[in-house]
Amino acid sequence: MNMYEIISKKKRGESLTNEEIEFFVCGYTNGEIPDYQASALLMAICLMGMNEEETLNLTMAIAASGDSVDLSSFGTLSVDKHSTGGVGDKTTLIVAPLVASLGCKVAKMSGRGLGHTGGTVDKLESFPGYRTSLSPSEFFDQVEKIGIAVTGQSGNLAPADKKIYALRDVTATVDSIPLITSSIMGKKLPSGAENIVLDVKFGSGAFMKDADDALALAESMVRVGNLAKRKVSAVISNMNRPLGRAVGNSLEVIEAIAVLRGEGPDDLRELSLTLASEIVSLAFDISREEGMAKVTEALDSGLAYQKFVEWISLQGGESAYAENPELFPKAKYSHDIISGCDGYISFMDTEKIGATATALGAGRRTKEDIIDLSAGILVSKKTGDAVSCGEVIATLYSNDKNCLAEGEKLYISALEFSHKKPKEESLIYEII
Amino acid sequence: MNMYEIISKKKRGESLTNEEIEFFVCGYTNGEIPDYQASALLMAICLMGMNEEETLNLTMAIAASGDSVDLSSFGTLSVDKHSTGGVGDKTTLIVAPLVASLGCKVAKMSGRGLGHTGGTVDKLESFPGYRTSLSPSEFFDQVEKIGIAVTGQSGNLAPADKKIYALRDVTATVDSIPLITSSIMGKKLPSGAENIVLDVKFGSGAFMKDADDALALAESMVRVGNLAKRKVSAVISNMNRPLGRAVGNSLEVIEAIAVLRGEGPDDLRELSLTLASEIVSLAFDISREEGMAKVTEALDSGLAYQKFVEWISLQGGESAYAENPELFPKAKYSHDIISGCDGYISFMDTEKIGATATALGAGRRTKEDIIDLSAGILVSKKTGDAVSCGEVIATLYSNDKNCLAEGEKLYISALEFSHKKPKEESLIYEII
Repeated sequence: MNMYEIISKKKRGESLTNEEIEFFVCGYTNGEIPDYQASALLMAICLMGMNEEETLNLTMAIAASGDSVDLSSFGTLSVDKHSTGGVGDKTTLIVAPLVASLGCKVAKMSGRGLGHTGGTVDKLESFPGYRTSLSPSEFFDQVEKIGIAVTGQSGNLAPADKKIYALRDVTATVDSIPLITSSIMGKKLPSGAENIVLDVKFGSGAFMKDADDALALAESMVRVGNLAKRKVSAVISNMNRPLGRAVGNSLEVIEAIAVLRGEGPDDLRELSLTLASEIVSLAFDISREEGMAKVTEALDSGLAYQKFVEWISLQGGESAYAENPELFPKAKYSHDIISGCDGYISFMDTEKIGATATALGAGRRTKEDIIDLSAGILVSKKTGDAVSCGEVIATLYSNDKNCLAEGEKLYISALEFSHKKPKEESLIYEII
Repeated sequence: MNMYEIISKKKRGESLTNEEIEFFVCGYTNGEIPDYQASALLMAICLMGMNEEETLNLTMAIAASGDSVDLSSFGTLSVDKHSTGGVGDKTTLIVAPLVASLGCKVAKMSGRGLGHTGGTVDKLESFPGYRTSLSPSEFFDQVEKIGIAVTGQSGNLAPADKKIYALRDVTATVDSIPLITSSIMGKKLPSGAENIVLDVKFGSGAFMKDADDALALAESMVRVGNLAKRKVSAVISNMNRPLGRAVGNSLEVIEAIAVLRGEGPDDLRELSLTLASEIVSLAFDISREEGMAKVTEALDSGLAYQKFVEWISLQGGESAYAENPELFPKAKYSHDIISGCDGYISFMDTEKIGATATALGAGRRTKEDIIDLSAGILVSKKTGDAVSCGEVIATLYSNDKNCLAEGEKLYISALEFSHKKPKEESLIYEII
C-alpha cells in the first residue's frame, strides 16, 4: 500500500478501503506522509466524494488517533451537544443544565478555539472562580453528583483531526461533507457520550450558507454516529441572523441566565428547548413531544435555573453573579448605532456581525489573543424588524475606545434595509 | 490575490485568470507557495479541467519561467520534433538529418532523463567522440553550416516545469491533458523552433493507453502551439508494440542507420517519413503529399544518410561507425528467447518490454544510473507475427550476465499468444 496509489484511486472516483484510510490517517498523523500528498488526497475527496462506509472509516480512524473518554459508568444517560458554529450561540449554557436537571449526564470538555466570541469555557470564565480545569476524578465525581461538568479540553483528543484540519484550512479543502463529518464526529465519538445532538446551522452567519447543504451534512453525521452505535439527532437551524440579542462572552452569559429565568429572547428559548427535547428523547427513549413537555416544564418551573446555579457554584464560580447578573463587569465604553432611515431590516450578513464582535475584542483571531469578556454587541433590531430614523439598532461594548468606530462601520456594512417587510424565516428548518 | 482563493476558485470549477496562473507558477517556482497548496491546486486542475485560454496561459507562464533559445536567425526554417515517449523510438536519429538535408534547421537540445533507454543524446554517445556539449556559438554555427546540431540540454529551460512535474509525479496528478500540454509545450516554446511536430503515442507502451485520449492531448497541444504563434502538427501513432526491432541505445542507432540506408523495419521507416513530411510541409508551406514526396526522395536517394554522416562527423563523432555499424561494440552476453508454442503473438505489454531493456542496463532508473550503451533487445516477433515452437522471438543483450534471466522472465510476461491471427492495427492513427 502506498500513498500515491491511494490518491490515484480516489482521483479516479473509486472507494478507498478501510486499510487505505487508516494508512493515510495514521501515516499523516505520525509525519510519514508529507503534506503535499495529504492535500492532494483531500482535494480529490472534496471533488470525488466518499460513500457512507468510507466516511465512517475516516471518522473512526480520526477518532482512534488519540485519547478517548470513558463515560460508560453513566450507562445510557451520557449526553453531548455540538453546534457547527454561529453568532450569538449560547445554547449550551441553557441546554446543559436543563437536561442535567432531568437526569441526563453532561460530561463536557469544550474547546476554546478561534471565533467571533470565545467558546463555552471562555464564556463560563465570566464567573469569577469558575474552574475550567478539573482533575479526571473531580470531573467524574461532579457529573456523578449533579449531572453536569463543563471544562476545557484536556488530553489529546483526535490529534489526526487537528493536523488534517490545519491542512484543509490552507488548501481550500474545508468544504466537503465527508471531511466535515469525519472532523466533527471524529472528535465527538471519543468524547464518549451515548446520546449526541447536533445543531447544524445554515445561513449568512454559518459555514453552510444553504439549508439543504446543512441538511445533507446533518444526515451524514447522524448516519455515521448511528453506524458507530451512538444515538444521534440533528436540528437544522437558521443563522441568517444572530441567535438572541447578545454577542460577546459575559453578555451571552447574562442572556442565557435570562432564558433560564423565563425571560430572554424567544428565538434563543425556542432553539434551546428544541435541542434539549431532542437530548432527553434520545436519552430516555421517549417521543419528541414527551421530550418537549419535559424540558418546557423543567425550564418554566425553575428546575433548570437551579441546576445552573448549583453547577456554577460547585465548579467554583461565584453563583451570586447568576442570581444578580448586574454584578458582571461592564465594558468601559459603549456606543449606540442609530438607524439613518425608516423601514425594515431586510438582510443581516451575520458573519460580519460576528466579525464586529471580534473587532470589539470578544473573540480570538489567533490562539494567543486574550479575550475581552465584557466586549460585544447587544442587537436591538434584527431581520424583519421595523426601524425608524434615529432609533437604536444595536449597542457596541468594548474596553478599547478605538475599536468602536471600526465596529460601527463593520456592523452597518452587514445590514440591508427595505421599505417592505421581508418574508419571515422559521428558526428551525428541520429535525432529523 | 492569494493561493487559497486560487485553489478555491478552481475547486468550484471556475476559470483562472492569467494573473492568477502567473501568480501560482512564479510563486511556486520561487518557493513562496508551499508544495501542499500547489498539489491541492494541481489535483483540482486534474479533476475540474482548464479551458483553452487557461491552458495557454499556464503554458506561457511555464515557458517564461526560464531561459529561451532565439532561433529567429533561421527565419521560418527552424524545426523541432517531440515524442511523448515510446519503446524503440529512435525516429529523431532519422527525421532530424532527413529534414536537415532538405534545408530545415534542426537546432535541438535534448534531455537525457529517465526511461527504458537513454534519450537521443545518450544514443548519439554510441559514436566515439560525439560532442554532446557545444558552446552557443559552435551550436549556432553548426546549424547555420549543415542545418543540424543535437546537444544535451544547457541553460535553465522551464524551471517551473521541473518543479511542478516533480510534484505531480508524487501526487498522482500527472494524468491531465491541460497539465501535460503545459508541461510539454512549456518546454517546446522556449526551445525556439517555428515549426513543431509532435509524435503523440498511445497504447500499451505509451503514457496514454487510449487513442482518443492521445488525440485529445494532441489537439490541445496543437491549439496551444498555434495560439503561441507556432506552426504545429501532431501524428498520433500506435505504441501497442515496440517501434522497429531494436530497443537499446547503440542497437537503436544501428537500426536508424539501416533505415537511412534504405534498409531497416517498415514501421520505423513509415513513422519517420510521416513525421518528416509533416515537418517539411510546415516549414516550406507545402501540402502533406508534396512533403511526403520530398522526404521519400531524400531518404531513398541517400541524401538523408549523407547528412547524417556529415552531422555526426562535424559534431566530433567517428563517422566510420555510421558507414560500418559492425564497429559498434557488442554486449558481452546475449540470450535468445525461444517460443514454447505455435501460434501468433496476440498482445505485447510494450511498457514491460521497455522495463526489460532497463533491467538489461539500457535505461536509467535514477538520474545517477550509468547507461550500458550496448545493452538492449532485438525483437524478432511482434504482435500479429506467427511463431513456431523453438523459434527465436527476441534476443537480449547485456554486459551483466545476471540480468539476462530477469530480463527473459520479464519479457515473456509481456507477451500473450493465440491460435488465431489477431486483427492488424495501423501504425498511424491520425495526423492533425
